[in-house]
Amino acid sequence: MNKRPDEFELIATYFAPLAADPSALGLTDDAAVLPGTGTDEIVMTADALVAGVHFLPDDPPGQVAQKLLRVNLSDLAAKGATPKAYLLTVALPADWTADWIGAFADGLARDQETYGISLVGGDTVSTPGPMTLSLTAVGSVAAGCAVRRAGAKAGDRIWVTGTIGDAALGLRVLKGQLAGLSQDARDFLADRFRLPQPRVTLGPRLPGHATAAIDVSDGLIADLNHVCETSALGALVRADGVPLSGAARQALGGGEVAIGDLLTGGDDYELLFTAPADRHDDIAELADAVSVPLTEIGEMTEARGVHVALADGSELEIADGGYRHF
Amino acid sequence: MNKRPDEFELIATYFAPLAADPSALGLTDDAAVLPGTGTDEIVMTADALVAGVHFLPDDPPGQVAQKLLRVNLSDLAAKGATPKAYLLTVALPADWTADWIGAFADGLARDQETYGISLVGGDTVSTPGPMTLSLTAVGSVAAGCAVRRAGAKAGDRIWVTGTIGDAALGLRVLKGQLAGLSQDARDFLADRFRLPQPRVTLGPRLPGHATAAIDVSDGLIADLNHVCETSALGALVRADGVPLSGAARQALGGGEVAIGDLLTGGDDYELLFTAPADRHDDIAELADAVSVPLTEIGEMTEARGVHVALADGSELEIADGGYRHF
Repeated sequence: MNKRPDEFELIATYFAPLAADPSALGLTDDAAVLPGTGTDEIVMTADALVAGVHFLPDDPPGQVAQKLLRVNLSDLAAKGATPKAYLLTVALPADWTADWIGAFADGLARDQETYGISLVGGDTVSTPGPMTLSLTAVGSVAAGCAVRRAGAKAGDRIWVTGTIGDAALGLRVLKGQLAGLSQDARDFLADRFRLPQPRVTLGPRLPGHATAAIDVSDGLIADLNHVCETSALGALVRADGVPLSGAARQALGGGEVAIGDLLTGGDDYELLFTAPADRHDDIAELADAVSVPLTEIGEMTEARGVHVALADGSELEIADGGYRHF
Repeated sequence: MNKRPDEFELIATYFAPLAADPSALGLTDDAAVLPGTGTDEIVMTADALVAGVHFLPDDPPGQVAQKLLRVNLSDLAAKGATPKAYLLTVALPADWTADWIGAFADGLARDQETYGISLVGGDTVSTPGPMTLSLTAVGSVAAGCAVRRAGAKAGDRIWVTGTIGDAALGLRVLKGQLAGLSQDARDFLADRFRLPQPRVTLGPRLPGHATAAIDVSDGLIADLNHVCETSALGALVRADGVPLSGAARQALGGGEVAIGDLLTGGDDYELLFTAPADRHDDIAELADAVSVPLTEIGEMTEARGVHVALADGSELEIADGGYRHF
């Protein structure tokens, strides 16, 4: 049997050679940064969702719309960009209904108001397969100020927004697992999975502070590893410094979940960024200014690889660096 | 049985209300025009292709890639924009092969060289359905110079590039029809369907000449009707002034095809534009300068609707204004 490449190998083998333009950042970043003729650069990112793969046919259509839009806004935030507009292509299955599309459009309308952006184009086609949605988001950032994955320096501190691992637990709740948690905790975690809160107020404030940034979509360790690889560095994370929600602590306490599950769980759409150690106070002030919790969880190292120190001084064994959504 | 909206109704009902931003041009244009901070504006357009709907699983993958890219470049050209970059999302079916993707990427590589653009981002996901491809193309145009659909004036002359109706005949050839044509004619027409030649050299020269423009993708009459509706005008076309290829004349002469089939056939990806009558000589010079055949086929009128005058003085009866690809 021939082994086919996985997502990362496929991109590296077939698509990265097409992305020679510096704007593409080698396809190793969250978004492309296109030079403009003025004081701003254009930042662009695209994501696709497939019914039955990324969402279930009976998921609320408005939430599907919001998740599709928000994961792209999270990518823009990770570059320090302010969202401006988006394009949407929709492949409609044979059994699509006007009700579904109406509720989907309502979800977009709500988020357009929340995030101050607008639909500007796209395409609608039919498919014999499942509903397939693709969204391209466009933002802007002051020229030269886009934050890259590949800018971290050894000794930089690693910061994350919000709490880590909730969305992966939320997916387990939605699958009927983690029945031992309180209903409040279960609801909280399910919401965290269903409806990401992209850090759009923090993102545009990162230029000038952050040396590198990424959004936590594949899992903390996997995404930190992306920063390490593109920055040609390693990282040391203190497990007990990683911010956890009350619900996640409850799950951890109950023994149904291990810290490794939280550090490798995807879909949180928090931001991870690196900044020089002497910026600590500025960043604490920034957290207050934008009302986003920011926690320092470790530092970048010359030694390659992501290492996680546990409270007892031992090191967390990492099986495969996080989950892959492909 | 509930009647579901068609593509145009669906867009008008559910998506146009989301496109309040002036950049979106009400979703009635080929592309969005986003203001920049400098001397250029950003022009963006997106199209999707689905295996089994828009291409066949055994079509050459390189040609599928080129058609996907070129239909978007045609949209940019219709706005007067110069292409810069593109993003691609790919939903891979369960039976995808590295050979298919490799040949698809080779097609993109060839066109990147031809058109001087580069892949800058996108997404790769899996699907239980057919291969689904979505491409967003980005171009630039001098600020304020983008050509809209809604700019035609009564009395403006209507111009088209190249020849009209070939692609629709090519599709019939590929379905085994039009067997009475010469092999050369059949090959020519099939190529016209398989591989559009977007008018990228002409497009960026249209600002300053054209008052409105569109690319001929739904069919000459349908696309001219889009210009008429957005410009609140009508049009009168002289059927014997519409440029036809030798192969199309052969088909017309053989009686297997009527002039109405050519004027309503889609997928030509020629440009149609309007310009003041006194620009005739400038436009003839422009045709020479960019080596693109340009033919004046009629004029814009205060009287609404698209009217086609036949050589015998009668008017062509138009059943439904062109075909709809949905």
